[in-house]
Amino acid sequence: MTDPIVTGRRLMRYANGAMTEADDLVVTEHPVTLMLNGEEFATLVCTPEYVEDMAIGFLASEGAIAAYADLKPLSYDAQTGYLYADTHRPTAFATELHSKRYVSSCCGKSRQGFYFWSDARTAKRIETRTAQLAPEDCIRLMEELQRAAETFRSTGGVHNAALCDRAGIRLMRSDIGRHNALDKLYGHALRTAGGGEPPARIVAFSGRISSEILLKVAKLGGEIVLSKSAPTALALDLAEDLGITAVGFIRGSSFNVYTHPERILRSSPR
Amino acid sequence: MTDPIVTGRRLMRYANGAMTEADDLVVTEHPVTLMLNGEEFATLVCTPEYVEDMAIGFLASEGAIAAYADLKPLSYDAQTGYLYADTHRPTAFATELHSKRYVSSCCGKSRQGFYFWSDARTAKRIETRTAQLAPEDCIRLMEELQRAAETFRSTGGVHNAALCDRAGIRLMRSDIGRHNALDKLYGHALRTAGGGEPPARIVAFSGRISSEILLKVAKLGGEIVLSKSAPTALALDLAEDLGITAVGFIRGSSFNVYTHPERILRSSPR
Repeated sequence: MTDPIVTGRRLMRYANGAMTEADDLVVTEHPVTLMLNGEEFATLVCTPEYVEDMAIGFLASEGAIAAYADLKPLSYDAQTGYLYADTHRPTAFATELHSKRYVSSCCGKSRQGFYFWSDARTAKRIETRTAQLAPEDCIRLMEELQRAAETFRSTGGVHNAALCDRAGIRLMRSDIGRHNALDKLYGHALRTAGGGEPPARIVAFSGRISSEILLKVAKLGGEIVLSKSAPTALALDLAEDLGITAVGFIRGSSFNVYTHPERILRSSPR
Repeated sequence: MTDPIVTGRRLMRYANGAMTEADDLVVTEHPVTLMLNGEEFATLVCTPEYVEDMAIGFLASEGAIAAYADLKPLSYDAQTGYLYADTHRPTAFATELHSKRYVSSCCGKSRQGFYFWSDARTAKRIETRTAQLAPEDCIRLMEELQRAAETFRSTGGVHNAALCDRAGIRLMRSDIGRHNALDKLYGHALRTAGGGEPPARIVAFSGRISSEILLKVAKLGGEIVLSKSAPTALALDLAEDLGITAVGFIRGSSFNVYTHPERILRSSPR
């Protein structure tokens, strides 16, 4: 197969009471080992496309770089799955702290104040309200995500994430890993930042809004996150704190707005 | 709320063209920091029930313990989220190797031969064929999983995994983390091993069959894995190698058997 994203499989299909042989496509899953300044940083199991953007987004997510400009040109060896990233200056990033992925830095009242360590450095409260959506926009953008995902891939095994504005999807990425899809968007955004395009402030996501997903949305500069699935309580606490509008359970013609409903208009704006 | 698993939320609900205030339940998500012999081993973000079983399953999954008997009694502080695990003997488990979660130990032909490091030690090829299912069993068990999950939780935000035999579900666990649900089953199985009950050889899972999920099924001693979702190509390579029957896309009255179809009967056994 030349397409690295899907591969053919022979299988037994059971339907209408009978078992028959059939051919089908399944999504591939590749390990990519990210080397940072000559040291093994992490291995991400992913859908092998936009791997460089995923690496950029992941490094920024983890706090290892602050901007794309911190990196020398990346080198990816698709054969071995090694991706080499080097920074212009030695990273201040302590390996010791990286391996301890989380700390409980209680912020006053409860364990709900817990933040992931690297996220505490990189996630900022969104104070802007440049994004606003009418109810029908929320429904339409989620439909567009599902349509785009279906066209893009028929294998059923991926998560889809998209940067949107009110007019529609501007950039979509798919990956078998929920986080990877968002890291691919984040890497693209970092790589093209300053190119004159205003950042997309709306993120549509096919999966559940967990705390980790919400933090990635915050790093992307998202003001609104749209999902057809449920959020978790911790994600909603974070959304509340970080000033993000979380819209979940977008199904058919209904949805729930969990936090910061001021960005969802009661009626269509002029 | 006394129930730690769900919590009430006030939200804005959009339906029938109008936005109204409503109350709903959302699933909680808690960080649990696992201390092994006094050192921080990992933090798992999870649904806070069966936390001890999750820790046992995770430690065994990661190769830090070989059996439940290796552990002294666990101590979990639900208030701080710290779970203390101590082994009778110092663990041979090298922290250095733990932090490098994966290695590419090519097994001859291609990168598809890649295995996760800790898994290479603990996953074994299943040679037994004690489990066999008729097509209608596959469909019925998946329906049972979905029904049990609906009764159990109405918040939509969790993955469900169950140990089954032909007669039905024997043990189900739910978690916002796909891996956690399986680790909870694994921990239970390890803790109760040798109790006279034969191990359940069939695992039903609500999510996609990825390589990591497949490896967890292998560690559980699963011969058949049932899912309503898609598998990945890497998961199927592993299933082929490890002797596991992977059944995916169980929807309505049809499904796909991807590997080792000999455990799926053409007609019902006597």
